Amino acid sequence: MTTRTQVAIVGAGPSGLLMGALLHRAGIDNIIIEQRSADYVLSRIRAGLLEQTTVDLVTQAGVGGNMLAHGLEHHGFEISFNGQRHRIDLQGLTGGKSVMVYGQTELTRDLMAARSAALLPTVYEAAEVALHDFDSTAPRLSYRKDGALHEIACDFIAGCDGFHGISRASVPATAIQTFERVYPFGWLGVLADTPPVSEELIYAQHERGFALCSMRSKTRSRCYVQCSASDTVDQWSDARFWDELRLRLDPEAADRVRAASSIEKSIAPLRSFVAEPLRFGRLFLAGDAAHIVPPTGAKGLNLAAADVRYLSQGLIEHYQEQSAAGLDAYSAKALRRIWKAERFSWSMTRLLHQFPDEGGFEARLQQAELNYLVGSTAAMTVMAENYVGLPLE
Amino acid sequence: MTTRTQVAIVGAGPSGLLMGALLHRAGIDNIIIEQRSADYVLSRIRAGLLEQTTVDLVTQAGVGGNMLAHGLEHHGFEISFNGQRHRIDLQGLTGGKSVMVYGQTELTRDLMAARSAALLPTVYEAAEVALHDFDSTAPRLSYRKDGALHEIACDFIAGCDGFHGISRASVPATAIQTFERVYPFGWLGVLADTPPVSEELIYAQHERGFALCSMRSKTRSRCYVQCSASDTVDQWSDARFWDELRLRLDPEAADRVRAASSIEKSIAPLRSFVAEPLRFGRLFLAGDAAHIVPPTGAKGLNLAAADVRYLSQGLIEHYQEQSAAGLDAYSAKALRRIWKAERFSWSMTRLLHQFPDEGGFEARLQQAELNYLVGSTAAMTVMAENYVGLPLE
Repeated sequence: MTTRTQVAIVGAGPSGLLMGALLHRAGIDNIIIEQRSADYVLSRIRAGLLEQTTVDLVTQAGVGGNMLAHGLEHHGFEISFNGQRHRIDLQGLTGGKSVMVYGQTELTRDLMAARSAALLPTVYEAAEVALHDFDSTAPRLSYRKDGALHEIACDFIAGCDGFHGISRASVPATAIQTFERVYPFGWLGVLADTPPVSEELIYAQHERGFALCSMRSKTRSRCYVQCSASDTVDQWSDARFWDELRLRLDPEAADRVRAASSIEKSIAPLRSFVAEPLRFGRLFLAGDAAHIVPPTGAKGLNLAAADVRYLSQGLIEHYQEQSAAGLDAYSAKALRRIWKAERFSWSMTRLLHQFPDEGGFEARLQQAELNYLVGSTAAMTVMAENYVGLPLE
Repeated sequence: MTTRTQVAIVGAGPSGLLMGALLHRAGIDNIIIEQRSADYVLSRIRAGLLEQTTVDLVTQAGVGGNMLAHGLEHHGFEISFNGQRHRIDLQGLTGGKSVMVYGQTELTRDLMAARSAALLPTVYEAAEVALHDFDSTAPRLSYRKDGALHEIACDFIAGCDGFHGISRASVPATAIQTFERVYPFGWLGVLADTPPVSEELIYAQHERGFALCSMRSKTRSRCYVQCSASDTVDQWSDARFWDELRLRLDPEAADRVRAASSIEKSIAPLRSFVAEPLRFGRLFLAGDAAHIVPPTGAKGLNLAAADVRYLSQGLIEHYQEQSAAGLDAYSAKALRRIWKAERFSWSMTRLLHQFPDEGGFEARLQQAELNYLVGSTAAMTVMAENYVGLPLE
């Protein structure tokens, strides 16, 4: 059975859902196909720090209600090293910009609810998803659901299905170039109902390894410690986690750590990855399908949102103005922003982590960089303007 | 035969000579011991870009006449990449600071002439220089000259004898920690009597490798191209050098290259090196004896001058105020500045060179960094404030 839509979106994570919402508001039909269940999608705990441009885009998509009501606006964050904390005054350094703490899970739930309420089609648990003929003007997408084979005929396919998705994998290897760096460590993250260590995020550089005290709300903490890439979650009891976190913070912050049972605990690898280009005929990649950043600086979701913004604008121009300009410019425009965010995420990762494969020279450079950073308004401004998000093109 | 002085200075390069001049003006006796001849010292062509604080120090030492008369004040420099040049407005970005182009050879000659005129003792071509008892209150220095063995008894030894000198080598290995990075390429430099390509320096990033168009005066150019670490000078005819330089510049700058016979041509390796600490009893290290930076950004001589400033102040405090505070603080204070300059020199080297041992990810990050730099006032300010020299403590 073949269904017809204008844009077939692969993946019902935040990128695909946001894409669907923006297209819908512009009167463009779309169907989302997702291999997993909605519950599975919501169970993937990710970061939750939104740039102002992401907040604006979510609001523009008509899904900003809960975010604006419950998100926490942050005007700064702190860096802890050598036993002391130093504040990066985002607002002061960027002429008034800030970021918003709002969990990706919550944002995904809001997007799902809005999509349901608008009765927009989303196919969960679609098996054997396959992309066809996207190098022609009549791309198709097929999948199996409840035993039956289905087909969607469309004008465009938006590949929003993440790093391991089928979209990028459907492109011939000769048409795509990839760039990758895998870091020799991971992040062990714990979600727990305990008040945040501080009102603002604390990024800690320490000889035992990086740590981050983040939050989802005023009563729910999300904290991380750098761990070995080969560690497993069962090596990390809750007690060991909180003890280790305390050891990596300055004494004053360590005193404020209140241990609590973990609601979720997982280890994430750190990776930098970019695929080029982002367009293959009538298939476009957006978000994690095209690029991964290490989580330091929380650029992943924000970068995906910028892709979605550029791509949805291109699609809207196509349908409303019969102009190919936006779609033609998409790949190069998005990649410029992506590489700047890759650079920032790499540099912030480098600044704060222990690199077991590097020597004393690099460790001293790291200390010098930290000392320079907190003593230079220009250097703090570089940090701040990247952290709040560089201006959109 | 034993001579007695207050401070024995090892090395008659710019660091040792400047140290001698500053101590002399404060009424502190000093003798300089140099293994080479004065002509040899002057034949070593080095960079020639002075930070304002270095200009001030040379002036304060009473040796600034020629420098102030003939040095070229530069208010900016240019970065060339992707076929275009972008100016870093040093003056505008740093609130009025600038740098001065004045060759190290010229500065060394001025310092030598002033020392001669003041009849201050400098022993050139001293053989078998050896440092003794610097862990006691009665250090000594011995050397052989014209066949005879000589000894200098002193209160302090200032080790200003460069990376290959005897001063650092005299310290027990267990007392010193070193940090090093050798870069997988060199700089081929040509000195020629041809007008500079531009009034300001041009640093070029290019897929063929880094290039730099610098100068000694309005009629004498000093230009460099990144070359393989294994290259030799005879592989590089003058014609090949100028052709290669043109290929690495943007078209407009390339058009202005006027080839000329080289007066000097040499290949320098690039190295980052720091020894810690800088004090061993009554022996103090300063300048290249303690640290090396890659030449990108021209921090070597300026960092040496900052060491000399801190150390001479410490010695003057010792003699004039009977205070050990300055000497006790010297090592830590100088190292803070050294590591910040090491960081800057490393980052500017990284930004502009081709790294044959790195992959596509790093190459893309480099492009992203360049694109970000020239579009961000904060990032250009970071570049500028480091380039003109961070404030002295």
